[in-house]
Amino acid sequence: MKLMSYVTSHRASFGIVEGECIYDLGSRLGDSCADLKTAIRSGALKQFEGLAGSVEADFRLGDVVNLPVIPNPGKIICVGLNYAAHREEVKRAVTTEPTMFVRFAESQCGHERPLVCPRESDAFDYEGEIAVIIGKGGRRIAQANALEHVAGLACYNDGSIRDWQAHGTQWTAGKNFPATGAFGPWMVTADELPADSVLSLTTRLNGEQMQHTTTDLMLFPIAKLIEYISTYLTLEAGDVILTGTPGGVGFRREPPVFMKDGDIVEIEVSGIGILRNRVVKEA
Amino acid sequence: MKLMSYVTSHRASFGIVEGECIYDLGSRLGDSCADLKTAIRSGALKQFEGLAGSVEADFRLGDVVNLPVIPNPGKIICVGLNYAAHREEVKRAVTTEPTMFVRFAESQCGHERPLVCPRESDAFDYEGEIAVIIGKGGRRIAQANALEHVAGLACYNDGSIRDWQAHGTQWTAGKNFPATGAFGPWMVTADELPADSVLSLTTRLNGEQMQHTTTDLMLFPIAKLIEYISTYLTLEAGDVILTGTPGGVGFRREPPVFMKDGDIVEIEVSGIGILRNRVVKEA
Repeated sequence: MKLMSYVTSHRASFGIVEGECIYDLGSRLGDSCADLKTAIRSGALKQFEGLAGSVEADFRLGDVVNLPVIPNPGKIICVGLNYAAHREEVKRAVTTEPTMFVRFAESQCGHERPLVCPRESDAFDYEGEIAVIIGKGGRRIAQANALEHVAGLACYNDGSIRDWQAHGTQWTAGKNFPATGAFGPWMVTADELPADSVLSLTTRLNGEQMQHTTTDLMLFPIAKLIEYISTYLTLEAGDVILTGTPGGVGFRREPPVFMKDGDIVEIEVSGIGILRNRVVKEA
Repeated sequence: MKLMSYVTSHRASFGIVEGECIYDLGSRLGDSCADLKTAIRSGALKQFEGLAGSVEADFRLGDVVNLPVIPNPGKIICVGLNYAAHREEVKRAVTTEPTMFVRFAESQCGHERPLVCPRESDAFDYEGEIAVIIGKGGRRIAQANALEHVAGLACYNDGSIRDWQAHGTQWTAGKNFPATGAFGPWMVTADELPADSVLSLTTRLNGEQMQHTTTDLMLFPIAKLIEYISTYLTLEAGDVILTGTPGGVGFRREPPVFMKDGDIVEIEVSGIGILRNRVVKEA
């Protein structure tokens, strides 16, 4: 299934997408499952596997405003330097363990919503990534069982304010401006797209390809990331892991490329779809 | 007022502390204010300023189990390298902006609760700090008005797993093991203890003083931290800012000092009180 979160003219909800059609689950599940995170935690989604096509659609894609796939993750854990081409372009040392930083939920935006370059900076850079949505929580999850804990995958643009990221050694400030992290348009559940699939990941800026990789080039694969993260914290359903960006980021180009007002940035992942956002420079 | 969060034999609650007495607010405020964060957000605490002493106490300190002062902050933003003595001992460069990393709420524990050294490491270090609890949210808060946004201050032990902190350039893994961040015993509200007071901060390990400073030595004072953080994110009531640790951390001593099973670690802040925890080595 493809699952997405959105706002209708009436309320925030979530549902199944098939083609242009949305089958609303918020209305079918009621108040006990107010959002997609809660629905994943409850295990209530499986009963709707045959829904799409068997009933009339509730909405078309054009009827709703996209929210981040998970608007309210308890934790968003971001992996840095997880492709050799990116590690080399930013001149970082090889490490034996992955590098992790944090994004807060409030820094996210949905597909086709404005990606906001704040007035404090003009150094707004794209980072195409694959997001892992956790389906089953746990602590000290072994790599061998880790993929059982994945609910699905989605496209993510881990947009970065490079000058603020470089204020100190820690990247928090550059990764948390509002509406800099785009997450969508939907997640594809793990039964349809296993998390160890070899996927292609492409970033385009105004139609021009800026980043391209395949996920077998991750230095730390998804199962290893889950093992490592769950050693130091307890993963919960609805938590999100961003798996790192490949080479080709804007600020390491000669001359540097940053996203400007009106630019269109797309993150395409094979088997998932295209996350598209227009950049808006804050007045 | 001194405000704390705790568990009674019946439920999780929060209340006012005076001497050994607790005046329960969870029962007085009902379900709409289920925790101290929500009570701060609601503005409902002011009506209880005269409560302590005017009615019979509900509990004594010994009757309850301490929770972190705010058990469920939306965000915990940690400031690194905010005292020159600590910046120098860890051999970090001078920066013109503060350094920030993130702790998740699940990494916290209350006063007199076990501080847990995980089985993966023996490099468990103390970091005595002052925690700022946000009372009024906002974005782009000017330094001149920033202290109006503070609900109160508390003691914090930003316990650090040093080898995991050093796995990469980012400190997330070393700062998020469960029950490594102690937060208590209570917060003192800003009307009694303004956030620009010059306070003394002392860390003791088994009774021996390991860290000592006064808060006028912060490189970036609390008002500046609020201005900086609220530039890149929206602060909300109940968010917590950890303001950095002074010199004297264990891992930079010769020989290094780490906390061992059975050790007692105390963080004392003048005008607030003493946060005390026993270290437990996980089996």
